[in-house]
Amino acid sequence: MKVLALLGSTRENGNSEYLAKKIVKGTEHTLVKLSDLRIEHIVDQRHAEGGFSPVDDDYEQLVQHMLSHDVFLFATPLYWYGMSGPMKDFFDRWSQYLRDERFHLKEELARKKAYVVISGGSSAKVKGLPLVQQFQYIFDFVGMKFADYIIGSGVKPGEVKEDILALAKAEQWNGLFLK
Amino acid sequence: MKVLALLGSTRENGNSEYLAKKIVKGTEHTLVKLSDLRIEHIVDQRHAEGGFSPVDDDYEQLVQHMLSHDVFLFATPLYWYGMSGPMKDFFDRWSQYLRDERFHLKEELARKKAYVVISGGSSAKVKGLPLVQQFQYIFDFVGMKFADYIIGSGVKPGEVKEDILALAKAEQWNGLFLK
Amino acid sequence: MKVLALLGSTRENGNSEYLAKKIVKGTEHTLVKLSDLRIEHIVDQRHAEGGFSPVDDDYEQLVQHMLSHDVFLFATPLYWYGMSGPMKDFFDRWSQYLRDERFHLKEELARKKAYVVISGGSSAKVKGLPLVQQFQYIFDFVGMKFADYIIGSGVKPGEVKEDILALAKAEQWNGLFLK
Amino acid sequence: MKVLALLGSTRENGNSEYLAKKIVKGTEHTLVKLSDLRIEHIVDQRHAEGGFSPVDDDYEQLVQHMLSHDVFLFATPLYWYGMSGPMKDFFDRWSQYLRDERFHLKEELARKKAYVVISGGSSAKVKGLPLVQQFQYIFDFVGMKFADYIIGSGVKPGEVKEDILALAKAEQWNGLFLK
Repeated sequence: MKVLALLGSTRENGNSEYLAKKIVKGTEHTLVKLSDLRIEHIVDQRHAEGGFSPVDDDYEQLVQHMLSHDVFLFATPLYWYGMSGPMKDFFDRWSQYLRDERFHLKEELARKKAYVVISGGSSAKVKGLPLVQQFQYIFDFVGMKFADYIIGSGVKPGEVKEDILALAKAEQWNGLFLK
Repeated sequence: MKVLALLGSTRENGNSEYLAKKIVKGTEHTLVKLSDLRIEHIVDQRHAEGGFSPVDDDYEQLVQHMLSHDVFLFATPLYWYGMSGPMKDFFDRWSQYLRDERFHLKEELARKKAYVVISGGSSAKVKGLPLVQQFQYIFDFVGMKFADYIIGSGVKPGEVKEDILALAKAEQWNGLFLK
Repeated sequence: MKVLALLGSTRENGNSEYLAKKIVKGTEHTLVKLSDLRIEHIVDQRHAEGGFSPVDDDYEQLVQHMLSHDVFLFATPLYWYGMSGPMKDFFDRWSQYLRDERFHLKEELARKKAYVVISGGSSAKVKGLPLVQQFQYIFDFVGMKFADYIIGSGVKPGEVKEDILALAKAEQWNGLFLK
Repeated sequence: MKVLALLGSTRENGNSEYLAKKIVKGTEHTLVKLSDLRIEHIVDQRHAEGGFSPVDDDYEQLVQHMLSHDVFLFATPLYWYGMSGPMKDFFDRWSQYLRDERFHLKEELARKKAYVVISGGSSAKVKGLPLVQQFQYIFDFVGMKFADYIIGSGVKPGEVKEDILALAKAEQWNGLFLK
């Protein structure tokens, strides 16, 4: 089982990254910090004649990663009660690549399993719930199984180390991924 | 009453833009298409020594617009069950400017009223609800009043013209803004 | 098209009832005020030996109504951010009747279309959204189509008459049901 | 610290009850199974002349319990993606007792802390989220602190014993309540 961990945070060693690294430790995995790549916003050409224009950025690396891994781990801090901007751009661009005939991305995505890590302050356990629902709708659209999610408590770097239950769940997932 | 209409779409003349233009017609307003500006992702330096570094992009124009208008109209297509990436970046950067001592952005935002337009397919009336809840949490955080929202039906450009009730609500808001 | 309007309110001539009556006016319909019937709470015997025990109350009338109508209109005031207790009991008892071999309730429900009316104060447009999502999950479970919903503004009896857009939508539905 | 555990289930020894009992074990607590009491539906007389009429049922016991405990534990199975009917009636009747001048229920509720246990099938971790949001709105209304929630996996009686993380959280809460 190969795990693709996609990090949405825009700082180093934040709380969602800490959990993500704990979850993939020792497993066969690829870890990508989305903000390290050049990813353009979608330009919505769904109804344009000729469809989507090619974009010269780093997105196709991500397409290749998606195709070659079995499990996706989406780890994002809760920014303004949603996923981070870089992660949002990642999903927005699916609209382009689901239509790209070189890949069979939609069929492939339907075979994957998704895990989600969200980190935020103490209110995130409730105010992060619309984001969990959004992830569910996203995964439903492509037929991907939404296996589970963690909402970890942590704002300052390192704080999540005190969220014992988030750590326990991270370890439980790690055990699953090691099998 | 001065209305700041912020458009999140990444195409021309889409459905959310159509509604937004109907809503502000004849009013004193500024209309900004976010994807026409250069807006960087946030770099989260909330806990960095020295705080946020200056960013050389077009964001400060937006800060000036926010300070000088009374009512904000956020108009976004539903992209992957959330606001568009450009609009997400717009909000993410609030984290930087709320801390910028040159402005008193948080205090100013607390005096504004927000209206939201979301456009999407027929499922948007339910699958757009997490986004409505996210907007509510965003506005609560800064103490801005969330006056109302429209979820309009339209995917292909122009389709929303058949959503009679969305148009009626757009006209009702227009009437309010003309006063 | 036969419409079954189920009223969840526990007072006479409230706002959700007003909208419901407007919606069914002139159509072939049955209007049932749930609190006028004797409906027991569910007793959860899903895993009891022998299954559910017969209950001596008015519920079977409702089963017959569900079987013989095409469209269901659920109209409830927002009580504590959910449907009213009598309406909740109505749904809870589905667990019993979906298993009752005399009827083929689940197959029949999958052929129906559902419309929802919620009335509440000004906050209901946002704080009623979890209820809309709950209805969606309920209808998904039985395969019923969730056609649309209205969230009307009104607390004191009659107040909803000033919610022009709720009335417009009620009339639009009435037009559909008259066809 | 005195804990009032209110059980919404309508069967014996279900999963939410199992968790609730684990949480209160050894603490000073009162455990009430709501379906064992006679609790009438609300009759909405908020706008009736003379206000609410007295109701002859067991509710006032619950009012006394609410006044005399510090922490409330609401434990309900997820029935049709909401709290059970008996628990819904419990909350609906707050509308009556918040207006009853013999008590100062609203002021008292604002001093309490709420914990929530929801049990359901594997989909409950997502499809139970509207219920979590509903609880948040309820607690916000009366100013009660929503401390935390557990969504445990279990449909058949006893199944939740295999949800290691739900049990861990139950033990963590138990530790808090023992202090």
